[in-house]
Amino acid sequence: MSTELELKQYFETCVDRVDTVIDYFLPPASTESRLQEGMRYATLNGGKRFRPVLVYATAEALGADPLKANHAACAVELVHSYSLVHDDLPAMDDDELRRGKPTCHVAFDEATAILVGDALQSLAYEVLATESSNPAHHLDAVCRLNMITTLAEASGTMGMAAGQAIDLASEGLSIDLQQLQNLHSMKTGKLIRASVRLGALSAGCKDPSLLLQLDDFATNIGIAFQVQDDILDVTGDTKIIGKKSGADAALNKATYPSLLGLQGAQEKASELHQKALMALESLDHKAAPLRSLSNYVVTRTY
Amino acid sequence: MSTELELKQYFETCVDRVDTVIDYFLPPASTESRLQEGMRYATLNGGKRFRPVLVYATAEALGADPLKANHAACAVELVHSYSLVHDDLPAMDDDELRRGKPTCHVAFDEATAILVGDALQSLAYEVLATESSNPAHHLDAVCRLNMITTLAEASGTMGMAAGQAIDLASEGLSIDLQQLQNLHSMKTGKLIRASVRLGALSAGCKDPSLLLQLDDFATNIGIAFQVQDDILDVTGDTKIIGKKSGADAALNKATYPSLLGLQGAQEKASELHQKALMALESLDHKAAPLRSLSNYVVTRTY
Repeated sequence: MSTELELKQYFETCVDRVDTVIDYFLPPASTESRLQEGMRYATLNGGKRFRPVLVYATAEALGADPLKANHAACAVELVHSYSLVHDDLPAMDDDELRRGKPTCHVAFDEATAILVGDALQSLAYEVLATESSNPAHHLDAVCRLNMITTLAEASGTMGMAAGQAIDLASEGLSIDLQQLQNLHSMKTGKLIRASVRLGALSAGCKDPSLLLQLDDFATNIGIAFQVQDDILDVTGDTKIIGKKSGADAALNKATYPSLLGLQGAQEKASELHQKALMALESLDHKAAPLRSLSNYVVTRTY
Repeated sequence: MSTELELKQYFETCVDRVDTVIDYFLPPASTESRLQEGMRYATLNGGKRFRPVLVYATAEALGADPLKANHAACAVELVHSYSLVHDDLPAMDDDELRRGKPTCHVAFDEATAILVGDALQSLAYEVLATESSNPAHHLDAVCRLNMITTLAEASGTMGMAAGQAIDLASEGLSIDLQQLQNLHSMKTGKLIRASVRLGALSAGCKDPSLLLQLDDFATNIGIAFQVQDDILDVTGDTKIIGKKSGADAALNKATYPSLLGLQGAQEKASELHQKALMALESLDHKAAPLRSLSNYVVTRTY
């Protein structure tokens, strides 16, 4: 997978696949239930599906049929979506635009947005606990429990929720590179690591040293993802990135470009990409999509 | 267990037990982390622990060591607590007082309260997925997955979150008894049913007809619980019930007393209690705490 076109096609295949699974598990669209409508609005919205693609690509890199990772890919996207809905709330980041559309609380109302997030989170665990309807994709009970633990740990007080709390607490404060890295490791890094781990678990991987290498890979692309996000906030086009550019600077938020300069941030991203590739050295050609994803992280324009 | 004193002691034992488990699973108190402080504030707050007591009493009724239900009791209370924190938010019920103390968003802030709820929810699933540290209380992986499914179904779009959405949507509207019952069956009934089911699963129960009888019991006390809540909102003392009495009438909410009259509501509660007892007919003296709980539901004064 050396060309941009091939990666684009790979993304499209994964997006179609995970969207079908998300659609299957979501409650049916109902004009009578704002909650159900809101859940669909917040998830089936043309998102990049970066985390599900990571789940699938990891399962494939380990030689598994990627369809075995369907539930994992769906669950991690449900958690990611719930976190976006809650992060966008007025009491949090107060964002009105997400993926180029009004945020959930703007399109519906705040109460609905809170409940949409809550219900998406519980659905994620329900999906992981559910056995695949296709016997060829069955995962044993212990494996499914490991996935639930992985996702819950990445979401809670040692992960995403804690990261968002630190982010809010440090708004307007001057923080250094180490603190910024710690914040993002919690806020976005843990869920990216969980995505890779979920892919590996879906593939039945139990090799501790391989799991550690994959963790290392995920840690590096997790940071790179955030560095690139910060870079795009400076250089990106509002129309393309789907949210207002320059928003971080306006909020006086510490970012990689503000701490390292734009060129310094770009060098950092490239260095993280190299480290990520090194972590995959022991894997064969089946890891091509995973390698391309690392490249995508630091070259993407939205 | 025929006296009020015995039930009081039973409650105290269960409260001590579940509070120890909750304390064990919560992140340590930290003055540096408002999130962690908020999670403790929202859970270790002298709550009645009605749902954990139900979990323990059900496990006991089926002849199991109640300690086998520790994780289930903890998880259901974490979900209940998260729902209270979110329900109290300004965008939802906008309550300032809970269990006689300022609500979480008043004591901390709205963003923290949203994240506290989110993190409590993920912790609940982490707790259910975790094997007991005591080998005598181990539950097999399939049993733990069933518990996760049970809790997630009760919390999400077919349960608690949906009930709260319907509740908000019907504020100020005139709804009939059937709609009120449906609303409460979702909003509080499902989690009460899940508590009983979790207790039964902790006890290793796989007998479908027994599980159905227990469901029937739980459905009846679930409705009775809400009827009594509505009665207390009319007759209760703000100091004793720990929240403002008359709040429902002020909000023009449909309640059992507003639809049936106060006496009608009291008769309804008593009738539900009788039905609940009938559902337990096949169980022996070990179900005494469960029977007392049904009585408690319709006689409690707070």
